[in-house]
Amino acid sequence: MSFYAVIMAGGVGKRFWPQSRRTTPKQLLKITSDESMLALTVERLKLLTPVSNILIVTNGDQEEGIRAAVPEIPAKNVILEPEGKNTAPAIGLAALHVLDRDPDGIMGVFPADHHIGDVQAFKRYLENGIEAAEQFRGLVTFGVVPTRPATGYGYIQFHERANPDQPVYAVRTFAEKPDYETAQAFLKSGDFLWNSGMFVWRADVIMEAFEMHLDSIYDSLIVMREAMGKPVWDSVMTYEWATLRSVSIDYGIMEKAANVFVVKVDFNWSDVGSWDAVYNLMEKDEHFNVVRGDVQVSDGQYNLVYGEKQHIALLGVDNLVVIQTEDAILIAPRGQSERIKDVVDELERQKRNDLL
Amino acid sequence: MSFYAVIMAGGVGKRFWPQSRRTTPKQLLKITSDESMLALTVERLKLLTPVSNILIVTNGDQEEGIRAAVPEIPAKNVILEPEGKNTAPAIGLAALHVLDRDPDGIMGVFPADHHIGDVQAFKRYLENGIEAAEQFRGLVTFGVVPTRPATGYGYIQFHERANPDQPVYAVRTFAEKPDYETAQAFLKSGDFLWNSGMFVWRADVIMEAFEMHLDSIYDSLIVMREAMGKPVWDSVMTYEWATLRSVSIDYGIMEKAANVFVVKVDFNWSDVGSWDAVYNLMEKDEHFNVVRGDVQVSDGQYNLVYGEKQHIALLGVDNLVVIQTEDAILIAPRGQSERIKDVVDELERQKRNDLL
Repeated sequence: MSFYAVIMAGGVGKRFWPQSRRTTPKQLLKITSDESMLALTVERLKLLTPVSNILIVTNGDQEEGIRAAVPEIPAKNVILEPEGKNTAPAIGLAALHVLDRDPDGIMGVFPADHHIGDVQAFKRYLENGIEAAEQFRGLVTFGVVPTRPATGYGYIQFHERANPDQPVYAVRTFAEKPDYETAQAFLKSGDFLWNSGMFVWRADVIMEAFEMHLDSIYDSLIVMREAMGKPVWDSVMTYEWATLRSVSIDYGIMEKAANVFVVKVDFNWSDVGSWDAVYNLMEKDEHFNVVRGDVQVSDGQYNLVYGEKQHIALLGVDNLVVIQTEDAILIAPRGQSERIKDVVDELERQKRNDLL
Repeated sequence: MSFYAVIMAGGVGKRFWPQSRRTTPKQLLKITSDESMLALTVERLKLLTPVSNILIVTNGDQEEGIRAAVPEIPAKNVILEPEGKNTAPAIGLAALHVLDRDPDGIMGVFPADHHIGDVQAFKRYLENGIEAAEQFRGLVTFGVVPTRPATGYGYIQFHERANPDQPVYAVRTFAEKPDYETAQAFLKSGDFLWNSGMFVWRADVIMEAFEMHLDSIYDSLIVMREAMGKPVWDSVMTYEWATLRSVSIDYGIMEKAANVFVVKVDFNWSDVGSWDAVYNLMEKDEHFNVVRGDVQVSDGQYNLVYGEKQHIALLGVDNLVVIQTEDAILIAPRGQSERIKDVVDELERQKRNDLL
């Protein structure tokens, strides 16, 4: 058996405006380092498998940007969805590609745009997950030990230990993003983990799960599988994909399946969901500012300032997010960066395609 | 006798950074309208005298920008100081030019960068001042009826009425910029006016005042006068100017002279000393924002936002000053724009000549 890493790279990323645009979503941005989130994800996965085994699922809008961002990924490893249908169909499509290469293949599913602090720990935990996927024919999730009562993540409640030598547990339940009180209770309980959105399973095992829990998608996948490599592929894909339900793998399969396991991982992880999350991740200067570019802060603290070319002078302001690109600048308070969507929605209403 | 309007245009204007630069000080900026402060000043003065009688005193750094900003002013009317020596020497130099054209000439002195709301009222008050300068051989100042206990202006205390038909008064005293309590007392007293920095007098009368109160400057002015129009002019100017004391006309003459009058003027006036003053002057939108350029304010109030080309999005922020140019952007709270000098000083220390 061989291991295939599937990167899910279809996000649109309004929340990182003005850096994120329709053709440059979050995974193509260099927001936590000098490399794009996608390139960092590829770097991590190269610890586990050669680039020939790294697949990227994305869409036509982003294809060009993605190929440019990670040129080392073979062209045929970039898998295009005709349109976004949430994670279950994308994962099913990737599973077909893995099975086509190796009927015994194991696949890992990885968001393209998450931050992981300790890549060596990441590698070890993944190896635990791969072993569990093989040993138990399991659907393996990765649950991060929570450090605060986060309301922005789903949670996984773990149960009995499945492997005495490794942090692999049976799963009791999945929980949607909780309210603050529930999140506090989860944190206190000690048996709830953040759902990292990473998975590992044998490709044939996830296909069995589709058959059992998402049978209409399974039927389409079988039709597609028959058409793979044949002249009818494009027309079959177009037709079948249009019929698919838009459903997440969590809701469609993980919450229903019996053979679900979780690897309890304890490293610095973030889905980097907003500019606020970026501020929290990054190293601060002595005044707790995070700055990049030609930035001058006089008498200001707790600011996140990302400049590009233009000089940015902050005078006597605290707790601001200032993000500047060639053609736009955003100024918002820290703690409200979720609301950037409102700014982008307004630009959409105004048909400001130059800024979208 | 003819009337000459002398515009004092030598300011450096750090307080309007990043718009103001060494070669484009405040008077060349379009901060209160689509025209530069200097062009607006010239427009006002054209109500009183033809452009051939409008003189501008400035320095070599700004000469080019000034000629470009007000091309209608004849080239020979732009008078260059070899270096800035405060207002008294500049006014003395301008007086020589007026006397050269008309020994009975009356001159008015006007800052290049102040805001006056009602230009017709301005014209009427100036005519009152010109009459007083002629009738009393007076040194005539213009004092604005104060509307708040401003600490940023000098004050003039008026005394007996000098002309029963016009708002012209004898001056009791000049006061430097007061502290807040003193400013409140001035406002309450009813006989203190803001010193607008505008003056009117006969050129020969101000020369007499130099002779009496600033005799060393007077001696130099006489030497210069002898050299005017002769080949030695440049070398005489260079030599004599270097010897001059740097002193203001207020301190050097007005506070000492006996024949001082004030025209009590009651119009919307501001020295536009800071971005805060600009905010106060300008018309607000329904959320009390003052915006110019491609600006989007979502859920924000009381902001001053001046953009240039780049799109600026404010989200959930209040009371900010945001000034953006081709190469820089300043973000500061309203009420602290006096401190912009600190930003510029820091840029000077860093030798960022590209931004100065």
